[in-house]
Amino acid sequence: MDATDQQLMDGVRRADRRALAKAITLLESTRADHRMRADALLNALLPHTGQALRLGISGVPGVGKSTFIEALGLYLIAQGHRVAVLAVDPSSSLSGGSILGDKTRMEQLSASPSAYIRPSPSSGTLGGVAEKTREAMLVFEAAGYDVVIVETVGVGQSETAVAGMTDLFVLMQLPNAGDDLQAIKRGVMELADLVVINKADIDLDAATRAEAMIASSLRLLGHAGHGDGAPSRVLKLSALKAQGVDTFWQKVQDLIARRRTTGEFAQRRQHQGQAWMWDLIHAALLGDFRRHPDVRRALPEVLKSVNDSRVAPSAAARQLLQLFTRA
Amino acid sequence: MDATDQQLMDGVRRADRRALAKAITLLESTRADHRMRADALLNALLPHTGQALRLGISGVPGVGKSTFIEALGLYLIAQGHRVAVLAVDPSSSLSGGSILGDKTRMEQLSASPSAYIRPSPSSGTLGGVAEKTREAMLVFEAAGYDVVIVETVGVGQSETAVAGMTDLFVLMQLPNAGDDLQAIKRGVMELADLVVINKADIDLDAATRAEAMIASSLRLLGHAGHGDGAPSRVLKLSALKAQGVDTFWQKVQDLIARRRTTGEFAQRRQHQGQAWMWDLIHAALLGDFRRHPDVRRALPEVLKSVNDSRVAPSAAARQLLQLFTRA
Repeated sequence: MDATDQQLMDGVRRADRRALAKAITLLESTRADHRMRADALLNALLPHTGQALRLGISGVPGVGKSTFIEALGLYLIAQGHRVAVLAVDPSSSLSGGSILGDKTRMEQLSASPSAYIRPSPSSGTLGGVAEKTREAMLVFEAAGYDVVIVETVGVGQSETAVAGMTDLFVLMQLPNAGDDLQAIKRGVMELADLVVINKADIDLDAATRAEAMIASSLRLLGHAGHGDGAPSRVLKLSALKAQGVDTFWQKVQDLIARRRTTGEFAQRRQHQGQAWMWDLIHAALLGDFRRHPDVRRALPEVLKSVNDSRVAPSAAARQLLQLFTRA
Repeated sequence: MDATDQQLMDGVRRADRRALAKAITLLESTRADHRMRADALLNALLPHTGQALRLGISGVPGVGKSTFIEALGLYLIAQGHRVAVLAVDPSSSLSGGSILGDKTRMEQLSASPSAYIRPSPSSGTLGGVAEKTREAMLVFEAAGYDVVIVETVGVGQSETAVAGMTDLFVLMQLPNAGDDLQAIKRGVMELADLVVINKADIDLDAATRAEAMIASSLRLLGHAGHGDGAPSRVLKLSALKAQGVDTFWQKVQDLIARRRTTGEFAQRRQHQGQAWMWDLIHAALLGDFRRHPDVRRALPEVLKSVNDSRVAPSAAARQLLQLFTRA
């Protein structure tokens, strides 16, 4: 690292806002020299990372994610925490950002010097967005943010990506019957360490019914990683009225303490680190393959011949692989 | 193709049993020259494939898969069909075959000249087993078998693999409450085009209750690819007493006819062909990567440094990729 990057690193460690913004811009750059500097910076920051609690929060549009994150963030800051809010929104490059596009949605939180709200990177693909968010998470941890919240909207595989980079994945639900079946169907309920039923202030009865229903679904699903005697993983609250946020946080801490004791916490992080590495390797190998001039040239005709059943898919694969490795 | 392979192909086309066995042995060989001959054979057979109905059948051990396949196979043969039964059992190389290990399980069917029962290839990995089975399917189609049944046991991702190579995926269930939730949880219910509740002769009431429950789950899950007005996708039967097999076959034909009209049938096959090709390409690229001497040498230490948070996973990935591409 040269003097400029050393300065950048010192700035990040001091949680200087300009340095944080610069570091993240560097990480998100596609220039090869930037990428090399970003790697060096990340490795230098690495010994100072890993101390934060990483919290994933997901839910359909309208469930009240940003209201909840604002309420939770303000509660945590009042307790002396420092909170970074990141987002994974693969659609942001198309839609201009469906979540966290503007900070006005978390007005009070974004005004706090103890909070940093970073919109979703807009690299287009989920893999790209997820990688940048994972790296940004490390930067904020090195800057001393001790709670990192990663928000995502229930689109495609983004929940899987966020669950794969956080210690605890929280699914937010509306107090409507049937909502839970949708989540089960999409496999998101399976990912959830905690289920939060929001808007309990509007219809407490409905929220209570939803709580019981989801609790019973979770029991039947026999959620992996939660043995007998594990505390309930469902709770209802009102993000708008900031009611139940303290109970939520207590539950989070209980779960984390439990997992630290069993070793599950460290295991999950190691597993996530390795999975991240292999994801990047897969993406790079496939990218090289797809960009290879001979493969690119041959691909349309090969795909057509597979579609028309003129060439067996296995033979087509070997044909393309030969073009790739011959060069 | 030389004269020997031309002879082999002619034998396959005549459905000569020795030629079929030889062709499949050739496909399953790991020798490079065999692989080249197998590719040539497959491509030569390809124009004669695709006419069969490809039926996937899955269910937990004890649900009665082989009893059902025997009953269905005998019914189909009586109707003038020719039936090939293949299996995808990734555990077979370890366990010595948990399904279709011996043909005695389908005694009558295996004795019929109109049926061919082929145990699961034992190549060890699911990817390898699935690929060999896909190729064997083409061989049997070229030999004029017009119903190809691919059986699998509910282990890991094998159901996804079988659903990905068949026109219709059938999930067999026992008439027990809770069984369906397990299937929903594992995402198998989502894959099922038809759900068969077996052993309806033992407790008809339980089977009827299970039928209603699964039908309602399927409605709530809003199964993709099945619009309003689609016929019910659940039925109960007794494989042991061969009761309900005709209704099952009628349902299969109705569904297939419907999908041929909408174009979904052809689309699914094209999609499967392309997915198969990409699966093989992914596996080959990753295999090359893992076998690269520099990568192999460096990998243990790199993984350790990721686990100990000394190197960021993204930097570790780039480090390994550099070793790979430098050579």
